[in-house]
Amino acid sequence: MRIEIPREFERFGPIMFYDVQKVYELDSGLIYKKNETKPEEQSVIKRISYESLQEIQEQMAIIVPVRNEKIKLIEGVLSGIPHHCQIIIVSNSSREEVDRFKIEKNALEHVGAFMKKNLLIVHQKDPALGKALASAGYDYILDEDGIVKNGKCEGMILSTFLAHLCGKKYIGFIDSDNYFPGAVHEYVQEYSAGLYNSKSDYSMVRIAWHSKPKIVESNLFFAKRGRASEHTNKFLNQLVSHYTGYGTEILKTGNAGEHAMSMELAKNLDFSSGYSIEPYHFISMFERFAAIHDNPLPEILKQGIEVYQIESRNPHLHEVKGDEHVKDMSKAALEVIYRSPLAPESLKKEILEDLFFRNIIESKEEMKKEVVYYPAIVNCDLKKLQKELQNQPYGDQLTLDLSKYKPSKKEGLKRDQLKGKPVPEEKNYLEAK
Amino acid sequence: MRIEIPREFERFGPIMFYDVQKVYELDSGLIYKKNETKPEEQSVIKRISYESLQEIQEQMAIIVPVRNEKIKLIEGVLSGIPHHCQIIIVSNSSREEVDRFKIEKNALEHVGAFMKKNLLIVHQKDPALGKALASAGYDYILDEDGIVKNGKCEGMILSTFLAHLCGKKYIGFIDSDNYFPGAVHEYVQEYSAGLYNSKSDYSMVRIAWHSKPKIVESNLFFAKRGRASEHTNKFLNQLVSHYTGYGTEILKTGNAGEHAMSMELAKNLDFSSGYSIEPYHFISMFERFAAIHDNPLPEILKQGIEVYQIESRNPHLHEVKGDEHVKDMSKAALEVIYRSPLAPESLKKEILEDLFFRNIIESKEEMKKEVVYYPAIVNCDLKKLQKELQNQPYGDQLTLDLSKYKPSKKEGLKRDQLKGKPVPEEKNYLEAK
Repeated sequence: MRIEIPREFERFGPIMFYDVQKVYELDSGLIYKKNETKPEEQSVIKRISYESLQEIQEQMAIIVPVRNEKIKLIEGVLSGIPHHCQIIIVSNSSREEVDRFKIEKNALEHVGAFMKKNLLIVHQKDPALGKALASAGYDYILDEDGIVKNGKCEGMILSTFLAHLCGKKYIGFIDSDNYFPGAVHEYVQEYSAGLYNSKSDYSMVRIAWHSKPKIVESNLFFAKRGRASEHTNKFLNQLVSHYTGYGTEILKTGNAGEHAMSMELAKNLDFSSGYSIEPYHFISMFERFAAIHDNPLPEILKQGIEVYQIESRNPHLHEVKGDEHVKDMSKAALEVIYRSPLAPESLKKEILEDLFFRNIIESKEEMKKEVVYYPAIVNCDLKKLQKELQNQPYGDQLTLDLSKYKPSKKEGLKRDQLKGKPVPEEKNYLEAK
Repeated sequence: MRIEIPREFERFGPIMFYDVQKVYELDSGLIYKKNETKPEEQSVIKRISYESLQEIQEQMAIIVPVRNEKIKLIEGVLSGIPHHCQIIIVSNSSREEVDRFKIEKNALEHVGAFMKKNLLIVHQKDPALGKALASAGYDYILDEDGIVKNGKCEGMILSTFLAHLCGKKYIGFIDSDNYFPGAVHEYVQEYSAGLYNSKSDYSMVRIAWHSKPKIVESNLFFAKRGRASEHTNKFLNQLVSHYTGYGTEILKTGNAGEHAMSMELAKNLDFSSGYSIEPYHFISMFERFAAIHDNPLPEILKQGIEVYQIESRNPHLHEVKGDEHVKDMSKAALEVIYRSPLAPESLKKEILEDLFFRNIIESKEEMKKEVVYYPAIVNCDLKKLQKELQNQPYGDQLTLDLSKYKPSKKEGLKRDQLKGKPVPEEKNYLEAK
């Protein structure tokens, strides 16, 4: 991969946001070539060798959430994931009346055998998983029967646990409804490039789509951004500006479903439900770690959090969803900004107006609460979780070495407790400039 | 790349056609990994390491024909081509009133600098090229002013010369109207995989598209084959069956625009104009080399010609062309089958009927001659060609070592001379079974 180094950045406390990076070559070859002296070229364009990318991928889990997608489509997605990534499929496909999950699992294991890969395939509502989570002290996503609830966010939390237990250092997400395996391949290469470049143990890569083709009058039109993204990015940037004192447009990936993180960062971020999960990465990062004082992870002050945004070369073409979907997405994204204790009154007012004028909410005065928050997974008892799952068919894939691990005694912090408390005073942010 | 080995093959004289191969992983990693003993696994699924693919790419020229495409689109295509391939852009963009070629060349050289690649960019109608071809004895594609004519085929002939003069062992073609750089990357990887697998110096790889999405009622429908291809493949297979005596469906890539060849094969094939150029690869191969007796290249009898067909994972999504385009394409493809001295009367009759019932020709009795044939480039005087071009700006990229080369005294054989003559008797084919 040949990629420009970021031209701009914005700092918010210990968090560094890098501007969108352009990719010049998807594939720039091996390091060790005759006539090449420098292993990696140092210039404003950086060449990242295939070996370096594979090095990251050997430590990466790629999560593919599945819900009743066609098996052919999923098979295509899997074929695009570089071999050395551990694939984790978290399915919430229906099990009644036809057991779609069973068919799916059989078919994908079959494909996995052809790929010589050991896929980790679980069902979101497997009672064993619910039980294990409960015993580990993470019952937030369970229903009254002790089963993991429906929902994308709940599946992502579950998969973050699993990736962690697989002993992986990085976690990346790939949607299962992508028609272009070549785009999937590109996303994973870009995750790897960003994570390879990061100097911090706390890093994140988000993909900014090159374009999002839409069918307009029987032709394709290549829109630059999705419809929901424009609004999400605008308000996220306003929130950052409010604290840094400088207007900015640096955040361009508020709704990026394609993203990857170091496990160190992933396990320390809170979650929010539904379509708000991606923008909430930013909000959680701000709430937990933007402060210089009261930062719950002193190590983050030392190393910083690095957020890379990489512009994919492939357009993003996926299953067509309707206008309602865009509205739901926009509402959820703006709700987590609105409800953050960090959001100043002026910003909250603007968000309500924006949603009202787009006919997404009915009143300019208030917004119905729909989002649910879940705490970071960091304070769970991983030992108990591992023990509970070791008798599962996939138990031997959960290879994290916990021999020296001591579970924290703190319970996972509930999001409601945030209000006022660990959220720092405004002045702390100002000092961070 | 992880790819199945071909399950079926069909032999026609010294030509081996392999059935379509399925790709399981676009990217299967490096050879040299700890815990891996075998450099390449031997099984019905073959793993081809990244190193092996790059080895082929270092010897490959990728031709990108351009004609007034948007520069952004071309830039995307270039970003998908693996770094070590030599890119040759043969443009026939308009030079009046705006000199589009000049803008294009500047922009692409700029992009090339970012990629640290030396692109070879020429204009099809550059008088220097016409002059050089004439002095080398290949004036077939020149107009009365000594300039290369318009046309895709004429551009491909020109680019085959250039790739040869660049000293490349392989040549591959990539259309410049592909929206998905990830698909471009896949095609080149698959060219490399096929050529790597070939045991013969005479080999060809053709891409069978996974699917060809069409916009149907504002949604995407994934058709398995293009509309013209079905007919082309059917008649090509019938032609093969006629000589082998066995019905076959082995040929599935009659119209494959995405293809690559060893230079040894490329320089020995004749060309035909317009949309017929791709199916004519097969026809020319049959006419020239299917015979056991009278084969103009004894080496081919020894080594054989290997034709691989690889099914791409990415759908093929390109600029939408209308029904007329499909009809023109189908007419051209079937015309070269029809006009081959190898075509038996029964097949010729069927072709006329097929075209008539599809409203492509007006009479069931005859077909207007539209296709033009050009001879293989093998008998040209390469030394003269190289000498004429060495003062061009790109002269130092034409690095083929011709110190020991002796031009053949035979003139390039005109296609008309084929009629009856070097085309073998039917019995020769039958012996070849």
